[in-house]
Amino acid sequence: MSLDTPSVKPHDRLQAALADDLEAVGALIRARMASEHAPRIPEVTAHLVEAGGKRVRPMMTLAAARICGYEGPYHVHLAATVEFIHTATLLHDDVVDGSEQRRGRPAANLLWDNKSSVLVGDYLFARSFQLMTEAGRLDVLKVLSNASAVIAEGEVLQLTAAQNLATTEDVYLQVVRGKTAALFSAATEVGAMVADAAPDVVQAFYNYGDALGVSFQIADDILDFAGDTAKTGKNVGDDFRERKLTLPLIKAIATGGDADRDFWVRTIEKGKQQDGDLEHALQLLENYGSLEKSRQDALAWAEKAKRELDVVPQGDLTDMLRDLADYVVSRLN
Amino acid sequence: MSLDTPSVKPHDRLQAALADDLEAVGALIRARMASEHAPRIPEVTAHLVEAGGKRVRPMMTLAAARICGYEGPYHVHLAATVEFIHTATLLHDDVVDGSEQRRGRPAANLLWDNKSSVLVGDYLFARSFQLMTEAGRLDVLKVLSNASAVIAEGEVLQLTAAQNLATTEDVYLQVVRGKTAALFSAATEVGAMVADAAPDVVQAFYNYGDALGVSFQIADDILDFAGDTAKTGKNVGDDFRERKLTLPLIKAIATGGDADRDFWVRTIEKGKQQDGDLEHALQLLENYGSLEKSRQDALAWAEKAKRELDVVPQGDLTDMLRDLADYVVSRLN
Repeated sequence: MSLDTPSVKPHDRLQAALADDLEAVGALIRARMASEHAPRIPEVTAHLVEAGGKRVRPMMTLAAARICGYEGPYHVHLAATVEFIHTATLLHDDVVDGSEQRRGRPAANLLWDNKSSVLVGDYLFARSFQLMTEAGRLDVLKVLSNASAVIAEGEVLQLTAAQNLATTEDVYLQVVRGKTAALFSAATEVGAMVADAAPDVVQAFYNYGDALGVSFQIADDILDFAGDTAKTGKNVGDDFRERKLTLPLIKAIATGGDADRDFWVRTIEKGKQQDGDLEHALQLLENYGSLEKSRQDALAWAEKAKRELDVVPQGDLTDMLRDLADYVVSRLN
Repeated sequence: MSLDTPSVKPHDRLQAALADDLEAVGALIRARMASEHAPRIPEVTAHLVEAGGKRVRPMMTLAAARICGYEGPYHVHLAATVEFIHTATLLHDDVVDGSEQRRGRPAANLLWDNKSSVLVGDYLFARSFQLMTEAGRLDVLKVLSNASAVIAEGEVLQLTAAQNLATTEDVYLQVVRGKTAALFSAATEVGAMVADAAPDVVQAFYNYGDALGVSFQIADDILDFAGDTAKTGKNVGDDFRERKLTLPLIKAIATGGDADRDFWVRTIEKGKQQDGDLEHALQLLENYGSLEKSRQDALAWAEKAKRELDVVPQGDLTDMLRDLADYVVSRLN
């Protein structure tokens, strides 16, 4: 099967087109996740890194740099930096969420302990900044340190917004920007920056990553209610059980108004859930068309992502980034 | 009482001499610990920042910059950066140690939760790197990202070295460099760097901070066994109860050899402590002169710290840094 066959996922085509760069990123990650003095560090990081993960974010950095004609070595450093920041946030998220699984393996906080996850996350975060300084670009450092602040801010916001029925779509969007879109947009932006692309191209890559990230997270939140467990690996209704106010719920709560208020107060605000509640919630989402409205939002963000690429250099890699945006929402059909 | 009176603590004299700079640092910290979207962040940071803390580390940055004749604005940014990194590590340490108190107040992980401490720590860490980029110095970013990696590495090492009777003085020194000395040495080093001091002066400031940090931590670990609770605010024997292998214990275990081995295996390795164990441990430390030997080490590091200042510009601030080294070990008399 040719890589140009539409049935090959855009992610796999990007992986094939960027194979050499990705190998260099993998080697750099393995070299820098080591620690001379504390063997616990590579144990924990290897557990996560060997579990794979799709390396979507570093691929976005590599693709943006290549699309902008970059020939130097530092896109590899920045891609590894982005993956380190991502891995550090995964380690800390699993502590915050009390996760039991990550990338199909037991979460590090269970295999070792929360302490190790917190400290090894800190180590990777520090290592990511060390890697960045090697690229010698202060502008890139600003973008990635800003993204790191937005990520942490979004996570704290999610913490305080959880279980709060007053959460608006605007707050949801801020949370999503933090937990997902900020690193996507920084990943593509710094790829264009290291290639010294023109400001409008850098901005377009930022916008592409931002819109792709928002689209991706909305799709993920829809699949939590409507997904096929065999495909997504997630149980239907996890977010409902954890009382997370994601877009479909926010829309349903706003549409239902006073009629359903007691139900949402009991199940989300007070967390007193009982048998049949998830089914009732799913029925409300269906009655109000909340999942379909959310799907329309995800599609609009994916379209925006694709449109942004109009002003960047065209070619196979650019097409693959467009296909990636389509793929993110194709999961919803 | 004049500030030159020897009975005024060197810390207070530094504070008076650097009052304007410290006020600017405080204003910058308050401005940057805010968050537009997540009010939980300034709540948690204000709890720690308002509790005070002595701001020793930012003072060391300011003092080094001033001693080297710096007149620009960026020593304030770097001092705030150093304090942010310190505050972030305190938040994470309290989660890792399950602390109940910090700076005389309930620890943030108890007032809010571990989640908030982890995420707000991440936020402050990201903010510290944002602040650093504003100083526009890649060399300074390298020093501070290296220090951050050493800090996290030292904490992980402490985690795995805890309860391990094979812990050597070398491993102890690595842990101490991570948990204390790395940020002291980076604080003084970047102060000299931002002032464009000559390489040997920058190196001397690094060495001063490193030796002061090691001396400070050894003194702290001695006081855990020999301190006056009223003065130190710590209970005698906390480290023994938490089975932390600090310098006095490492020396006593090495000196006692096979004679005491069963006692240490039971109390430290297996953690099966009973009434009278702390008293027996204190007796062994006394018999073997372990506290006195540790005190001699602390004194030697303090002397080294002072010697390093021979090559830097001389003046009142330099004298105060020397006095600070003396003060750190004077607590042991």
